[in-house]
Amino acid sequence: MSFPSWLSQLYRGLSRPIRRTTQPIWGSLYRSLVQSSQRRNPEFSSFAVRTNTCGELRSSHLGQEVTLCGWIQYRRQNTFLVLRDFHGLVQVVIPQDESAASVRKILCEAPVESVVQVSGTVISRPAGQENPKMPTGEIEIKVKTAELLNACKKLPFEIKDFMKKTEALRLQYRYLDLRSFQMQYNLRLRSQMVMKMREYLCNLHGFVDIETPTLFKRTPGGAKEFLVPSREPGKFYSLPQSPQQFKQLLMVGGLDRYFQVARCYRDEGSRPDRQPEFTQIDIEMSFVDQTGIQSLIEGLLQYSWPNDKDPVVVPFPTVTFTEALATYGTDKPDTRFGMKIIDISDVFRNTEIGFLQDVLSKPHGTVKAICIPEGAKYLKRKDIESIRKFAADHFNQCSLLGKLRLECADLLETRGMVLRDPTLFSFLWVVDFPLFLPKEENPRELESAHHPFTAPHPSDIHLLYTEPKKARSQHYDLVLNGNEIGGGSIRIHNAELQRYILATLLKEDVKMLSHLLQALDYGAPPHGGIALGLDRLICLVTGSPSIRDVIAFPKSFRGHDLMSNAPDSIPSEELKPYHIRVSWPTDSKAERAH
Amino acid sequence: MSFPSWLSQLYRGLSRPIRRTTQPIWGSLYRSLVQSSQRRNPEFSSFAVRTNTCGELRSSHLGQEVTLCGWIQYRRQNTFLVLRDFHGLVQVVIPQDESAASVRKILCEAPVESVVQVSGTVISRPAGQENPKMPTGEIEIKVKTAELLNACKKLPFEIKDFMKKTEALRLQYRYLDLRSFQMQYNLRLRSQMVMKMREYLCNLHGFVDIETPTLFKRTPGGAKEFLVPSREPGKFYSLPQSPQQFKQLLMVGGLDRYFQVARCYRDEGSRPDRQPEFTQIDIEMSFVDQTGIQSLIEGLLQYSWPNDKDPVVVPFPTVTFTEALATYGTDKPDTRFGMKIIDISDVFRNTEIGFLQDVLSKPHGTVKAICIPEGAKYLKRKDIESIRKFAADHFNQCSLLGKLRLECADLLETRGMVLRDPTLFSFLWVVDFPLFLPKEENPRELESAHHPFTAPHPSDIHLLYTEPKKARSQHYDLVLNGNEIGGGSIRIHNAELQRYILATLLKEDVKMLSHLLQALDYGAPPHGGIALGLDRLICLVTGSPSIRDVIAFPKSFRGHDLMSNAPDSIPSEELKPYHIRVSWPTDSKAERAH
Repeated sequence: MSFPSWLSQLYRGLSRPIRRTTQPIWGSLYRSLVQSSQRRNPEFSSFAVRTNTCGELRSSHLGQEVTLCGWIQYRRQNTFLVLRDFHGLVQVVIPQDESAASVRKILCEAPVESVVQVSGTVISRPAGQENPKMPTGEIEIKVKTAELLNACKKLPFEIKDFMKKTEALRLQYRYLDLRSFQMQYNLRLRSQMVMKMREYLCNLHGFVDIETPTLFKRTPGGAKEFLVPSREPGKFYSLPQSPQQFKQLLMVGGLDRYFQVARCYRDEGSRPDRQPEFTQIDIEMSFVDQTGIQSLIEGLLQYSWPNDKDPVVVPFPTVTFTEALATYGTDKPDTRFGMKIIDISDVFRNTEIGFLQDVLSKPHGTVKAICIPEGAKYLKRKDIESIRKFAADHFNQCSLLGKLRLECADLLETRGMVLRDPTLFSFLWVVDFPLFLPKEENPRELESAHHPFTAPHPSDIHLLYTEPKKARSQHYDLVLNGNEIGGGSIRIHNAELQRYILATLLKEDVKMLSHLLQALDYGAPPHGGIALGLDRLICLVTGSPSIRDVIAFPKSFRGHDLMSNAPDSIPSEELKPYHIRVSWPTDSKAERAH
Repeated sequence: MSFPSWLSQLYRGLSRPIRRTTQPIWGSLYRSLVQSSQRRNPEFSSFAVRTNTCGELRSSHLGQEVTLCGWIQYRRQNTFLVLRDFHGLVQVVIPQDESAASVRKILCEAPVESVVQVSGTVISRPAGQENPKMPTGEIEIKVKTAELLNACKKLPFEIKDFMKKTEALRLQYRYLDLRSFQMQYNLRLRSQMVMKMREYLCNLHGFVDIETPTLFKRTPGGAKEFLVPSREPGKFYSLPQSPQQFKQLLMVGGLDRYFQVARCYRDEGSRPDRQPEFTQIDIEMSFVDQTGIQSLIEGLLQYSWPNDKDPVVVPFPTVTFTEALATYGTDKPDTRFGMKIIDISDVFRNTEIGFLQDVLSKPHGTVKAICIPEGAKYLKRKDIESIRKFAADHFNQCSLLGKLRLECADLLETRGMVLRDPTLFSFLWVVDFPLFLPKEENPRELESAHHPFTAPHPSDIHLLYTEPKKARSQHYDLVLNGNEIGGGSIRIHNAELQRYILATLLKEDVKMLSHLLQALDYGAPPHGGIALGLDRLICLVTGSPSIRDVIAFPKSFRGHDLMSNAPDSIPSEELKPYHIRVSWPTDSKAERAH
């Protein structure tokens, strides 16, 4: 999909909205971000050599002597130059008189994307030359002095080409990509939204921001944890997937409202749109129940929601896991549109159609349908064919109907129906998950549906001792437009119950968690929490195609940093202090010999 | 060293100030922290099952029905129970009438440090039984209902003993240690101070909070970087010591005011009072000079300084590196007291004392002295002896006089002189450091005094091509009470200069930094920044003896997590995906065989 370049937008006249979101343009971008977070504007030029930003100048600045610093965006016939900074663009008049020869030389000769500093006066543009589509379009700068701060070497490609090129090129030259409107917007919105979350948690509700270690020990079942060799032979730290244990220990320690914007690590090899390190808004509190956490999060999102979007309406609707599966065929339903799954078994109870008869005669056999609104009007014969094929391809997968529902939505939108309003953010709580699932490799054994510290549903505690498979948990997921953006639970605070679940039901080695079990024994308060996936949330809020668009320096889907070329080879003598050696795969030994 | 326990403080009557800082007591702690950060108090009981915190109740709450949750602090003769939460203590009257037998049973039988929930009415204490030293000392709670939320198992030691015990025990049972007044105070002050820093940077000055990767590639000379094996044979990520390269690349990317509360990593093996992971307030901005960064930081500290300390006075004084060495014998002088080093060569110019004659006849030969105020009054003969011995032990070390100055200060304070006011925070900028130092292993080669991206002093650029050893840099250190708490510099933004310094002067492999050099070529703005060591700063602000006292879950000085026992052994099959094997030292193979 094409990445919206702010450059091309500017050339086209700036105000074209970007697909799937209504993006503010340079200038109004800052107004909206700034208004949402504080009463007065930040001072963007404090402590700097400039007096103003390029993007802030208006008619109200007429006559002022200003110093601006920025990048040369483009030059028109050696008479005008457009200077850019993060705040926007401003037109600079290149002086033509003989006395300004040196200034003219600098401004005419510096390549595009060079960095210059100019001082001069804010003047009106001549009548008829105003540009109403440009926030600074009423004024221009009459230059007195200019300095070339840094010349830009000729880029190995045209900026226009670059913007159209592959994501790999964008990642390799990330520092150029970051100059784009879209990346500036995404990263600044992210910063603002996190700041508002901190204000809500810390200033309004007394949460304490506490940093927890990332050099930790491996956790049971933590197969996706990166390892960090220590200087003790055979001893490794692990980079944890979340601060789960630490946040529970903080509750035991009486720090009863904790949050952290926590860096987490997960080694999933090559999975699209995942990152080996990611960020979560990590929250835990004591003396709280499920509804307490839900209200907290609803308030958090409402408070931190960007001003340029429609306000968040609370409370969010809630469905149970069972309802979600029955109605949407998934535990993370996209509730921006209907097309719910309907049980139409009763209609066919007396059918004579053979295969339906077969199905309905079986225990739990049902016939289900999705009603596609105006399907007959929008869908073509080949669409119906593709739906039929999709169904056949996914036959016997229980999530078929859920996938089919999304497939049909895509088809309808391809055909011109507006099914999912791009300005709509549809939050949903999914609750009452099962506490355990059968293990994939051995379905007679159990594994935690989420993690082993999740408390059972209060009504289902007795089931732990009789039919643990049927026990529901106090886990809750937060879903936004069909994406899971958060999950949490009330935790087990009773050491006996925790031991029973770990040792007897899950058959885990409790020794690895002895510190946590001991902590529960020494006055652990009832507690619960949640973690929001920040990268995914910002990705949805900004309408970005990938989480890589809301991270300053993301890794490629293979986990590479394409700019610096990480991970990198390490000389074997640098491995020695860590008592490790590389085990070269036999087939690559030959390669190395070359 | 004795760790001030809030428990023992409470038993003693709460108001004793702790050595070296004036600590607020429970109750007033929160007032001071809260007032410093926002106009209205946070709602500490929102979303929770309690109606109030234990510590907030006053006469103004009389008659209110409240629900409190907390830990049993102690019980007096089965008639009173003192309940504790993070906010403070409150007295609960154990009901004696027959109808309340079940409530009484719960409250009388629950062990100390158990967690209970009580509901009841706020009543006055009987006349004469008020406790003016306790913030809630005018009231008590008449209980109606009580619930034991979690019983505390018998602790393996008395809490009183625990508080007196070794730091190792405190680290092993960190969740108990966190319940202490001091740890609660330290971590909450840290959270508040960082929040204020964010408000200053983000809301007042338009900085953008940007997260940078911690899975990166090794940097030249990065011998202290932890390694993270990847799934590609022989390829490793490195955990960077700072976001230095990323923050410079952000400047090239036009994000011209960046900050991050950044987790950094440094593998220094066992060094006292260092942590393998630590936190820095990381800042970078474009179009700025040294004084701009200095003013920014002065404003930052002034704005975020806790209300219960004397306000920070700005601007901070500045000394050059050369002056600092000459006057204080160190580049991080403690300026809370005088006792400066004075050159008294002239006095002895015509001396007949042989060894002084010898010294003064040599080039650069000087005689220097420290005047100890009232030394004759305070210091005893054996003190003079110990000073003489100290001088002999450190003979021929150029930092001798600086060490001697601190040694004398310690001695004077031991003898009762108040030399360093415990409420005084004395900031100092040290500037004009040398750009290069001779390499320790080969003094004919150069290494960067700080890092290779530091810009030379504008007056000394020509020296790079003639006498690079004499070139000063645009590096600046921030010193507080004799501790380096921050350092930064104006960076090189010119690719040619950066290449010359890396390749020609430092003889580094520029291939490892080709991405950064390329970025400088493509329109890098002039930029500079700083990093403040957050752990050290909070340690000094709270007057803590060690940075471990301002970190929730610190490692021991050997890099161990004594609570969870990290780092830990890893089964060899879990090493396979990372293509590494453990190289067991030969002498430990035998051990393993057992």
